[in-house]
Amino acid sequence: MKIRVYYEDTDVGGVVYHSNYLKFCDRARNQLFFDADRSLIFEEGILVVKHIDADYLKTAKFGDILEVNTTLLEIKNASFCLLQKIFRGDEKIFEMKIDIVFIDFGGNIAKIPLQEKAFLSGLS
Amino acid sequence: MKIRVYYEDTDVGGVVYHSNYLKFCDRARNQLFFDADRSLIFEEGILVVKHIDADYLKTAKFGDILEVNTTLLEIKNASFCLLQKIFRGDEKIFEMKIDIVFIDFGGNIAKIPLQEKAFLSGLS
Amino acid sequence: MKIRVYYEDTDVGGVVYHSNYLKFCDRARNQLFFDADRSLIFEEGILVVKHIDADYLKTAKFGDILEVNTTLLEIKNASFCLLQKIFRGDEKIFEMKIDIVFIDFGGNIAKIPLQEKAFLSGLS
Amino acid sequence: MKIRVYYEDTDVGGVVYHSNYLKFCDRARNQLFFDADRSLIFEEGILVVKHIDADYLKTAKFGDILEVNTTLLEIKNASFCLLQKIFRGDEKIFEMKIDIVFIDFGGNIAKIPLQEKAFLSGLS
Repeated sequence: MKIRVYYEDTDVGGVVYHSNYLKFCDRARNQLFFDADRSLIFEEGILVVKHIDADYLKTAKFGDILEVNTTLLEIKNASFCLLQKIFRGDEKIFEMKIDIVFIDFGGNIAKIPLQEKAFLSGLS
Repeated sequence: MKIRVYYEDTDVGGVVYHSNYLKFCDRARNQLFFDADRSLIFEEGILVVKHIDADYLKTAKFGDILEVNTTLLEIKNASFCLLQKIFRGDEKIFEMKIDIVFIDFGGNIAKIPLQEKAFLSGLS
Repeated sequence: MKIRVYYEDTDVGGVVYHSNYLKFCDRARNQLFFDADRSLIFEEGILVVKHIDADYLKTAKFGDILEVNTTLLEIKNASFCLLQKIFRGDEKIFEMKIDIVFIDFGGNIAKIPLQEKAFLSGLS
Repeated sequence: MKIRVYYEDTDVGGVVYHSNYLKFCDRARNQLFFDADRSLIFEEGILVVKHIDADYLKTAKFGDILEVNTTLLEIKNASFCLLQKIFRGDEKIFEMKIDIVFIDFGGNIAKIPLQEKAFLSGLS
């Protein structure tokens, strides 16, 4: 998943605005589903971010080409944890662990549908 | 409706990113409803932007305090047109005409619910 | 220039938030420069949006693949006008005319540097 | 620091997009400086986010009024750590620890200017 840094991603400091790295990682997660021809709209509920632990290692700049790398660290019945790294060439500029939980439309934690769980398990 | 320009609103050029003026105007439209204790989630459909004609007169910068001014230019059965101006002090920095149309959940143009139409008519 | 609609681009109405179409068009303008190995950071000044006239024809949804098409309508010494269209397959969903002006770092309108003018003239 | 959730902040899931909580916290940090009549543009360098550890406790929705609460956890010569909590009424919906470092324009870690350090120390 390659991402170009456009004008919209930068701030007055001349670098990528800090919350946009989270967007880039989300794009990569979305793209995993798109690439596998899977929908991210589920009948049983939605995926919700629960926890993020992020290290900003280098700053990305306008025009940079970044690559996001996603691996599964752990999957349970109702949640999973991903490790996402952003590289510029060989240089790692960002890394985060993200915990995502499945909740039903009543807002309660619920089991990840089996097909999704099987798909996610294949990401490790 | 006063709006402060935060870091998130700027770009590498040191000024407010051009599409964010549209967000500021949208906040002001939202706020008109909130101030009148009205919901923007309707049972009959949604409001959709149809056309925008925008003049960028001056550039806003990080830290500026802006004020958005909204007036109704015209209202019809299924659509209305607003004039929105953004000021920094006495200086007008942005102005746009925006046409908004009401569509039902099937995606068809529909009559604006009567109560909303009455409310919008009061904005002129 | 193909653009995928990600979660970040949508709003609670289930469609692409209206100001994001301007971002998509900006990405396409950025990409024209990147594809030609040209910088968008100039020594003499910056490009600033002056006027936008935009028609929202259809709504784009999460997961859609869009294509942005950019042509030059007119170029003068200090400004130029582009026509940008966004398609989903064969269907045109958005179209805008955008006027962009070159200003120096003192904030005054200035001549577009000759090399940039030559490059932009080639877009028609 | 009160923040209203506008249309722009939501996503197709009907709730606030996860990276926007970071924007809300940044607004609150900006506002601390504005309220004290201090600039966030320094002569010696810029403040850069180094690490974020964030817990998403509840989801915020369109129209919600949120309040961001910021306290200093620790300050060193070149960096500081803040605790930021977002509340909706009495209910805590988000909490994060954020480490921010001062870097000079050459990109190297540098001492926080004394006046800024004194100001930040007052936030605890």
